[in-house]
Amino acid sequence: MENKVVPPLRWDFSNMSAEVLGTADGINDSARSPALQLLDEARKCFEEDRKKGRFPFLELPYQSTEKIKTLAEMVRERFDNFVLLGIGGSALGPIALQQALHSPHYNMLSRDQRGGPKMFFIDNVDPSEVAPLFELLDPARTVVNVVTKSGGTLETMALFLLFKDWVTKHVGSRAARNHFIATTDLNKGALRKIAQEEGYPTLDIPEAIGGRYSVLTPVGLFPAAVSGIDIDALLKGAADLDQVFQKGPTSENGAIWGAYLHYWSSTQKKRNILVTMPYAEGLNGIAQWFGQIWAESLGKEKDLSGKKVSTGQTPVVAVGATDQHSQLQLYMEGPMDKTIQFISVEAIKDDLSFPPIKAEGTIALLDGRSLGELLQIEQLAIEASLTKAGRPNCKITLPSLDPHSVGALFYFFEVQTVYAGRFYQINAFDQPGVEAGKKIIKKLLLRKNRL
Amino acid sequence: MENKVVPPLRWDFSNMSAEVLGTADGINDSARSPALQLLDEARKCFEEDRKKGRFPFLELPYQSTEKIKTLAEMVRERFDNFVLLGIGGSALGPIALQQALHSPHYNMLSRDQRGGPKMFFIDNVDPSEVAPLFELLDPARTVVNVVTKSGGTLETMALFLLFKDWVTKHVGSRAARNHFIATTDLNKGALRKIAQEEGYPTLDIPEAIGGRYSVLTPVGLFPAAVSGIDIDALLKGAADLDQVFQKGPTSENGAIWGAYLHYWSSTQKKRNILVTMPYAEGLNGIAQWFGQIWAESLGKEKDLSGKKVSTGQTPVVAVGATDQHSQLQLYMEGPMDKTIQFISVEAIKDDLSFPPIKAEGTIALLDGRSLGELLQIEQLAIEASLTKAGRPNCKITLPSLDPHSVGALFYFFEVQTVYAGRFYQINAFDQPGVEAGKKIIKKLLLRKNRL
Repeated sequence: MENKVVPPLRWDFSNMSAEVLGTADGINDSARSPALQLLDEARKCFEEDRKKGRFPFLELPYQSTEKIKTLAEMVRERFDNFVLLGIGGSALGPIALQQALHSPHYNMLSRDQRGGPKMFFIDNVDPSEVAPLFELLDPARTVVNVVTKSGGTLETMALFLLFKDWVTKHVGSRAARNHFIATTDLNKGALRKIAQEEGYPTLDIPEAIGGRYSVLTPVGLFPAAVSGIDIDALLKGAADLDQVFQKGPTSENGAIWGAYLHYWSSTQKKRNILVTMPYAEGLNGIAQWFGQIWAESLGKEKDLSGKKVSTGQTPVVAVGATDQHSQLQLYMEGPMDKTIQFISVEAIKDDLSFPPIKAEGTIALLDGRSLGELLQIEQLAIEASLTKAGRPNCKITLPSLDPHSVGALFYFFEVQTVYAGRFYQINAFDQPGVEAGKKIIKKLLLRKNRL
Repeated sequence: MENKVVPPLRWDFSNMSAEVLGTADGINDSARSPALQLLDEARKCFEEDRKKGRFPFLELPYQSTEKIKTLAEMVRERFDNFVLLGIGGSALGPIALQQALHSPHYNMLSRDQRGGPKMFFIDNVDPSEVAPLFELLDPARTVVNVVTKSGGTLETMALFLLFKDWVTKHVGSRAARNHFIATTDLNKGALRKIAQEEGYPTLDIPEAIGGRYSVLTPVGLFPAAVSGIDIDALLKGAADLDQVFQKGPTSENGAIWGAYLHYWSSTQKKRNILVTMPYAEGLNGIAQWFGQIWAESLGKEKDLSGKKVSTGQTPVVAVGATDQHSQLQLYMEGPMDKTIQFISVEAIKDDLSFPPIKAEGTIALLDGRSLGELLQIEQLAIEASLTKAGRPNCKITLPSLDPHSVGALFYFFEVQTVYAGRFYQINAFDQPGVEAGKKIIKKLLLRKNRL
């Protein structure tokens, strides 16, 4: 007997409709009805492609996690510091998980409170990020997880060279081998070769899964497990959403609708900006992660037929309530060029009730309330004020900030991106535009004289 | 005898010109020549307004810092933890300074290495940010700096209520008075009143300086001084830039040109996005701070005559080299709707040389290089590849990441914003669009039942 699936999150696109915004800015029935047919067709293609194995990241929720958990357990027991070296998709997912599911002061907690090592994520080739770490950490008590899909990402390998040198100088080249774990492609790439030569433990990134779709591979799961996150619950959230999507009608599928409405906004209403605005500090990292998958997947010069199209919305990250005091003025009064995508959390953890209040004015209204309630009230108020001003917005609501919801949220955005790619008729899985820069980097590095 | 002024930073807008980008996307002489006259007029008005005292933030570089430094010295001696409560302009500046001028692992350094307390910045009403801090910190060893210009910002006062309760419960209401410092308007507001009643030390924000122009008031200077930043060097950098601007010709004034070119891009070329992309992890906070001053100052529904205009560019933050692996694809191939504003740093601190390299391929090219060189090479390469693809970009270069340069950078952006406001013919100092949301927050708080 199968358990009933609990919907791991909810979505609401009503504030993008003509019924709410008026016909000039919202989608109305004359656009929605033909869309439904398009959506149904897109879904059929999607399901066929999935059966053919073209979207292997969709099956990640059903993977076995034993190897990851075993290796993570070893790291938790043996090391005080965990350093991840990665860039782009190899860092954004791991960082997003850490931020969403742990205290912002995780590294300042006691070892007992953490239960595992301190967590560091290095995703830039900036000495000011690296040098202080070499001062701070004891290499003998540090494990380094080198993460690169291709196995040859220049920035990540540059960092690896420095960390390898640092560890080796302190513990010797033989012992240094026990301080590195490689997460990379199963078969190819420089890192795989080095890992084999040196005997590093390795974790495999399935071949057909690119960096920005890799958060539910060992790329994201391993550091999450090392920091004590329940990665099975994470995958269960994604699996539950997958079941909801697979079993429910297209008309109620939030990822397909979201993809279509953002595509429609961008192509029909010239709204070239999509702001992700979580009302939860911890979701900042997921908004940044979303920024990559949306920008890199959909920002394309040519469509599948080779026609020049220059598609894509520019993702912007705002955090509520903070950015009410920074970006909101522009969102309320500036150009009609954006949609605000709220993310809210229903059950507030560790909420703090206000003490009895003697002050006058608005502050007195906090009496009997809690800080979490204030955050939720602000989200509702800003949503209402944007809507009243005719500004398009939508919302994803998580029941709580836990691995189950967060796993589902990643999955929601991944599926939505693939559908959006289909509507734009572009390849959502390549990134040809970054090659030119890489070539120039190589050319400049070849010059013998400095810079 | 006056010292010769060292230019505290450099700017380069040539990659926005028709000579580089072609006439379709770049500015050419037929647009530039009439502009110069407009720029000269703008400068005249600006200087007259300044003389009339309309831009008091321009005089901040010449203020006395004695009171701030004395209070900061007391805090450095007496406390282990410094917590700033503020939102918007009351937090973005302080956070930007901390990030730019201290190690990312500042709070994990030893007391001796830091020389002052651990620094915490709370800029959201999210219990998950606050509750862990109550667990982590000893209230008896903690000082709280409450920062609100108006003295009644709801979020900041909500946080203050909780922190006051927390400290009072642990040390008693009499001793609690020694744990709070108020930074607020000299004369008005609830916080000023409470500070007087309780006897808190106070720091004054000059009346005519709004939150987003307040980083060089005690709002930014006090926490900077507490963490050991040389705030006189910070002001000197701003003062030096002011002198360069005052004495140099309009045609060589980077802030006026920057303002005009971004205004021109937005109104003539429909480039409604301005990406700030520092090649330095530490400048992330300044890019965020810029996001507020640019969005809130220029995102206006009506111009000064009351005509509906809906102006403003949406600021986006990207960090190099990291976001080459996240946003660059979109910037290279997506819509022609943005300008990339690079910030680079010339002298790299704590640079790390690569060890001898045995590997093959591009990685081998790092041999004899340093991590900082790689970062700089990547900036040059991405600038070149964007330019080659016809994508507008500009660059600000800091001689090094030190208080002098950083002070100048804040000042540069402030002056540029005021000029941009003049070109758009809008009020760059108000934020009428946020009032609607505040009213709804109040309405929702008034409801007796939950949410």
